[in-house]
Amino acid sequence: MNMNLSEYKNIFENFLLKQIPQRKPKNLYEPLRYVLSNGGKRIRPLLVLLSAESFGTNKELALPAASAIEIFHNFTLIHDDIMDKADIRRGKPTVHKKWNENLAILSGDTMLVWAYKMLENYDGETYKKLSSLLNQTAVEVCEGQQMDMDFETRNNVSIDEYLEMIRLKTAVLLGTALKFGGIVANIDESDLQNIYQFGMNLGIAFQIQDDYLDSFGNVEQFGKKIGGDIIDRKKTFLYIEALQQANETDKKRLIDLFDNKLIEDNDLISNVLSLYHKYQIPQITKRKIDSYTQKSLYDLQQTKMSKNYKMFWQNFASELMHRDK
Amino acid sequence: MNMNLSEYKNIFENFLLKQIPQRKPKNLYEPLRYVLSNGGKRIRPLLVLLSAESFGTNKELALPAASAIEIFHNFTLIHDDIMDKADIRRGKPTVHKKWNENLAILSGDTMLVWAYKMLENYDGETYKKLSSLLNQTAVEVCEGQQMDMDFETRNNVSIDEYLEMIRLKTAVLLGTALKFGGIVANIDESDLQNIYQFGMNLGIAFQIQDDYLDSFGNVEQFGKKIGGDIIDRKKTFLYIEALQQANETDKKRLIDLFDNKLIEDNDLISNVLSLYHKYQIPQITKRKIDSYTQKSLYDLQQTKMSKNYKMFWQNFASELMHRDK
Repeated sequence: MNMNLSEYKNIFENFLLKQIPQRKPKNLYEPLRYVLSNGGKRIRPLLVLLSAESFGTNKELALPAASAIEIFHNFTLIHDDIMDKADIRRGKPTVHKKWNENLAILSGDTMLVWAYKMLENYDGETYKKLSSLLNQTAVEVCEGQQMDMDFETRNNVSIDEYLEMIRLKTAVLLGTALKFGGIVANIDESDLQNIYQFGMNLGIAFQIQDDYLDSFGNVEQFGKKIGGDIIDRKKTFLYIEALQQANETDKKRLIDLFDNKLIEDNDLISNVLSLYHKYQIPQITKRKIDSYTQKSLYDLQQTKMSKNYKMFWQNFASELMHRDK
Repeated sequence: MNMNLSEYKNIFENFLLKQIPQRKPKNLYEPLRYVLSNGGKRIRPLLVLLSAESFGTNKELALPAASAIEIFHNFTLIHDDIMDKADIRRGKPTVHKKWNENLAILSGDTMLVWAYKMLENYDGETYKKLSSLLNQTAVEVCEGQQMDMDFETRNNVSIDEYLEMIRLKTAVLLGTALKFGGIVANIDESDLQNIYQFGMNLGIAFQIQDDYLDSFGNVEQFGKKIGGDIIDRKKTFLYIEALQQANETDKKRLIDLFDNKLIEDNDLISNVLSLYHKYQIPQITKRKIDSYTQKSLYDLQQTKMSKNYKMFWQNFASELMHRDK
């Protein structure tokens, strides 16, 4: 299986851009065009297309489902950016910055509905399966975002709560993307479950790795400045695990470091990193990432997909998870 | 047909309150419970139940569809209240005031999804008909809200644009409520169209009447202070029609009155009202209300509903439209 992913991306983007409604009022639909034309890796819709194909169905049939996922994902970005007061997304001003908050709320709402509308391309049972899965996932993504916001003001977040938050906020949508492909391919219930779990567990592994790379990666492969999460005082897997492992003195020190608004960024980073090293947080985190990656590969093996496609997904997972090497 | 509407309302509210999800995180679901328990006339869900019954189906079967409409309507209120910076709704603080804007955005999003989830109670074709109608209506309601916001900064809104705005922002949801009942009752396509048009045209009549009563009603029946729209400089049917009818001098005078931030409220109201009277705006508006009411009753007559139920709806429309007498 040697698939040309950039060709898939082109096919998807051509299709997606044709779906952007040519409707009035102009103000409402400009932000839709703006965010949907603004690139990104298109990872979720690619998962839909590749999953459908892996289960023996023409990827063209999966294009509306792939668009639903991508439109839904972009809706969450617009609303999350308002809530997080983020000014920049993919190198451009966010919708509420370029226009205003009211428009960002309302065009976000419209996009959520438009995601559902894309599914009208499917008939009967397929339609119901896709849209009720999108319902469930949409609720979970909102719950994950709320947990994330709740965590900002809490100092006693447990690792289990953190894992549940990233599962809901980001991982379930990856599982849903793969399951969408499976639903379009009309596979049986147990394979739907397997492919969903594969995507979800890989998503959790990926998200923990994102925390890991932010502290222990290198700039070239990570693509962002190292230590950004620490400067933002983000309660990552590393931070929560460190609080759990540290003795009382070091626990207090870590909390004080995060509460200290006057400390210089580089001092903060080096102090926090040395605490992380003292308690073997890199090793613990690596083990957790491996454990979720293994889980996901086990789920993949359980599917009745052909050997070639299993190999493809194994390589896909491996490339995704070794971006730091 | 002598139906006890308060009994229907009780049945609906008992059902609705059981649908509020018992899920975490608590912060996300508290606003749902808050707005859905906060009463209101429940006009839209009652339309669903009564429509299903009028077409020969047990109203119990329509309860999930009625809940979807009510939950959707309350989602629009939460987000509209943020955009309109409204502090009070049904005598209580709005969600973004009681909590904060982020929570109002996110719990609103969750409610929109929850409206769709309610439809999962229906199978196959019924499910698809209901949810694709909700898709269409949700898009239109967003478009209407955007037009309304666009109008705030425009001085050249035409009557046709205004009618299209109120059609989208409020009337289509009334048509949808009635059509939901018809879909549950599995009536044919032409009756679905008739009952939708009945609700939509009655909704437009009602909305124009709302503008009328704000200037020419009396406090007892209208339930609000007379002249509120004028004080808020709202571009109502009356205002737009007056601009259209007035000579250049009076047109300029009306625009200047609306632009004048220093004028005392009572002076503003009496000056605007005398211009309205000069150009027979009350009479013109009454004729428009009558015309939409007649249209709606014509649509009602086209349905294959029994005579008794047609009588019921005729009385219903008449009571709705004669609240100023």
